[in-house]
Amino acid sequence: MNAAFAYDAWYPLAWSRDVGRELTTRRVLEEDLVVYRTEGGSVAALDDACPHRLAPLSLGTLRGDAVECGYHGLTFDCSGSCVSAPGMPRPPLSAQVRSYPTSESMGMVWVWMGDPRRADPAQVFRLPQYDDPTYSVVEGDALPVQANYLSLADNLCDPTHVVYVHKTTLASAGREETRVQHERQGNKVVTWRWVIDGPLIPVFQGLKDFGGANVDRWHYYHYHAPCIAVIDFGSARTGTGAPEGNRDDCIQMYACHFITPIDQRSCMQHWLVLKNSPADPAVDARLRDSLRLAFNEDKRVLEAIQRNEDKPREWKRVHLALDGSSIKMRRIVEEMAASSSA
Amino acid sequence: MNAAFAYDAWYPLAWSRDVGRELTTRRVLEEDLVVYRTEGGSVAALDDACPHRLAPLSLGTLRGDAVECGYHGLTFDCSGSCVSAPGMPRPPLSAQVRSYPTSESMGMVWVWMGDPRRADPAQVFRLPQYDDPTYSVVEGDALPVQANYLSLADNLCDPTHVVYVHKTTLASAGREETRVQHERQGNKVVTWRWVIDGPLIPVFQGLKDFGGANVDRWHYYHYHAPCIAVIDFGSARTGTGAPEGNRDDCIQMYACHFITPIDQRSCMQHWLVLKNSPADPAVDARLRDSLRLAFNEDKRVLEAIQRNEDKPREWKRVHLALDGSSIKMRRIVEEMAASSSA
Amino acid sequence: MNAAFAYDAWYPLAWSRDVGRELTTRRVLEEDLVVYRTEGGSVAALDDACPHRLAPLSLGTLRGDAVECGYHGLTFDCSGSCVSAPGMPRPPLSAQVRSYPTSESMGMVWVWMGDPRRADPAQVFRLPQYDDPTYSVVEGDALPVQANYLSLADNLCDPTHVVYVHKTTLASAGREETRVQHERQGNKVVTWRWVIDGPLIPVFQGLKDFGGANVDRWHYYHYHAPCIAVIDFGSARTGTGAPEGNRDDCIQMYACHFITPIDQRSCMQHWLVLKNSPADPAVDARLRDSLRLAFNEDKRVLEAIQRNEDKPREWKRVHLALDGSSIKMRRIVEEMAASSSA
Repeated sequence: MNAAFAYDAWYPLAWSRDVGRELTTRRVLEEDLVVYRTEGGSVAALDDACPHRLAPLSLGTLRGDAVECGYHGLTFDCSGSCVSAPGMPRPPLSAQVRSYPTSESMGMVWVWMGDPRRADPAQVFRLPQYDDPTYSVVEGDALPVQANYLSLADNLCDPTHVVYVHKTTLASAGREETRVQHERQGNKVVTWRWVIDGPLIPVFQGLKDFGGANVDRWHYYHYHAPCIAVIDFGSARTGTGAPEGNRDDCIQMYACHFITPIDQRSCMQHWLVLKNSPADPAVDARLRDSLRLAFNEDKRVLEAIQRNEDKPREWKRVHLALDGSSIKMRRIVEEMAASSSA
Repeated sequence: MNAAFAYDAWYPLAWSRDVGRELTTRRVLEEDLVVYRTEGGSVAALDDACPHRLAPLSLGTLRGDAVECGYHGLTFDCSGSCVSAPGMPRPPLSAQVRSYPTSESMGMVWVWMGDPRRADPAQVFRLPQYDDPTYSVVEGDALPVQANYLSLADNLCDPTHVVYVHKTTLASAGREETRVQHERQGNKVVTWRWVIDGPLIPVFQGLKDFGGANVDRWHYYHYHAPCIAVIDFGSARTGTGAPEGNRDDCIQMYACHFITPIDQRSCMQHWLVLKNSPADPAVDARLRDSLRLAFNEDKRVLEAIQRNEDKPREWKRVHLALDGSSIKMRRIVEEMAASSSA
Repeated sequence: MNAAFAYDAWYPLAWSRDVGRELTTRRVLEEDLVVYRTEGGSVAALDDACPHRLAPLSLGTLRGDAVECGYHGLTFDCSGSCVSAPGMPRPPLSAQVRSYPTSESMGMVWVWMGDPRRADPAQVFRLPQYDDPTYSVVEGDALPVQANYLSLADNLCDPTHVVYVHKTTLASAGREETRVQHERQGNKVVTWRWVIDGPLIPVFQGLKDFGGANVDRWHYYHYHAPCIAVIDFGSARTGTGAPEGNRDDCIQMYACHFITPIDQRSCMQHWLVLKNSPADPAVDARLRDSLRLAFNEDKRVLEAIQRNEDKPREWKRVHLALDGSSIKMRRIVEEMAASSSA
């Protein structure tokens, strides 16, 4: 049931704002890491266990850029090499903890969990709009979800659940039986739907004045396997040509979800939103609250699904047309896992 | 150690008073069910998992007599057939959840967990005194017990524990070394004991005035395998011929226990009492409190036994004469399990 | 990973002060025992399960020196023999619970978990200073530690962790790179270190006035396998010949740790301190608080290590010179386990 992890990938580790000159811990792909910022400002990530007695290094002390174990004082630099061992003129050569490459982008620290020789910081995800001054950023939470990360990924490839799960936030009134399309593009799956000539959805209220007119609304779900979803959604006044590509006068948002697989039964959902309107504390707070509510609605469903999946019984499963994106996305993750070298 | 379940049987599902027009859940024989009352007043019970992504149907919405899944809107009628699937002209034929026959009797909803073709509502248990106007009903609780249901069944076939466990409620002062008898009658085991010429026990105090005279007291434990115990107990003034069958002027109660096996380590004990005296709020409240206390005394012992049984070690066990009822009762359950077709 | 238990040994069971005429329970080497004091003042320890239905005897009633089961009244004397069974003229010969030899020494009840024929109360541990009127006793706690008892034993063979874990209590300022020595003596490992011409450590402050002079400090860790650590530590004014054996005018303490292995992942650390100065409520309370703080510092590290050891992964381990004591101590426990007959 559980898919193998794709180790050769950049995973979100922590918000940059949460990593400083203290030892902190994160769990990724079933590994516990001790994480800290060096004096030079980069981020170090090491296995959180001293190879002597397995005391977590995070219980120790940061000395310059090195970590001193809190039990016997073995000290490791940020490459994981032991630079000092008590009572020994030089540390044993075998004293080494694994160090993980990191990089920062979009306010997040990213970690490479596979073969370090394959880690290329240039491949860390960065949405162009993040550097576009006409966009403002609303940073959200780190939401823990007690479900397999691919179940959350299913959810983030899927426009059809919105009307059932997010009645008060992301859905318009009434059913939305418009056609969903999708396609694979390399290691990405794009899924999209248009709703033509409908009312503004609740989260867009107050962002732009369309004078009460109906809008055309789009949802493009870009899933970058294995752990990134970017949902491009927006609205323009009906009849102004948005479906044909004219979005000069529209509301546009990119909801970015950076998923950390913790283990096979839990993940951390980091999210932020880019919007093509200036930062505004009141508007941004309302948007953040509204999305927080929506993502907790998903969490509730996904955790209940996980509890059913954990039961020791066979299930007869039904597949629907809407599963196409999920099937493609999971196939990409399988391919990435098979070619990984952890 | 764990006995197989007897699927072909009616099991207590919920108090009728607790099943209405909302989706609720119950767990029976390791299956989670979504339970609700139809517009016509009958009770529907379905597997609580949508066969698409395994979201619990209980998180969805009741629409008429059908349940709409809260994730993607698949809709199932109360026979478990899918009547609507999003984005599809007609639902896949394979989209089906299991539906369980139900019936109501004695204020309880009962569910048939085996082959539906063998379900006969005429066989649902009903004690004749439940419809006798000279009896009044005191409905009790749904008491969760973290023990195998057959361990609770042992307890409800067993008059000899009373003096050790229920010193302040159901026992009279002093040891009760009177003879216990038992016999199998079809799929029922009856176990009984008489105590001749003794004082009134605490729970009977105030129900009838015997002028301080001693009484003859009987206990008949009727265990209807696999999940129903009816304890007929009462007292009549000594010398008036109760042992010979004359109970014209007596206190008589039927303590009915309807046990829902939840899994191999827990069950739900639903209980009610019938007594041959009119309903009286003060008397009934006192009786309910007293029995609640007594059944919690059993719960404490049974849960401690379960914890010992769960330990990974071998036990040398001793069998006593009083185990005769339990052995017969468990043999009946084994027979019922062997002939079941789940 | 888990070492077999050495059954043929005396283990600490409970503080003598905590065992009286009530039924209490203790868990030792994965066995639950019911423990009580007899009318004659000795301590009885029986398996805490009635062999009839496995009800814990500790839920029953102490009747004289016998225990009556709280479910059906089977009664066992303190040798574990059943002396009464309900409804039977004499109890079945097979009705027997295991009884464990006990003894008392140094304020503790000790229990023999192996073959009772090998139990020799004369071998129960007793430190000579416990009976020396120039010493006073400070009895500490029963500290539960969620770690394998041998991990705590490692800690109690190890002078080198002090400066990293106990900065504010047991360590002096600065590193202590003095030489650690150790040797096996029968079933005991002794590990020691001297610190010459250093400041008084915090826990010794106020016990003796050295006029601000520096001291020579010793630590002798006597580990009596499998479960007793006695740490002889003290200080004398530098230059008065303490290293050569002259300790006429010194602070001397024996920190005694009596470890009860509960199961492979938890143990109970009973500790007391003997000191060569009179009992003094204020001084003793301060000493107790200080040591309590120190032992909780160890607990925090040891429990974190256990959580790492419990992870389903392989670890590359490093061995250091300081592991010599631990290796010898664990070898002794293996030898004792191999020759035990549980």
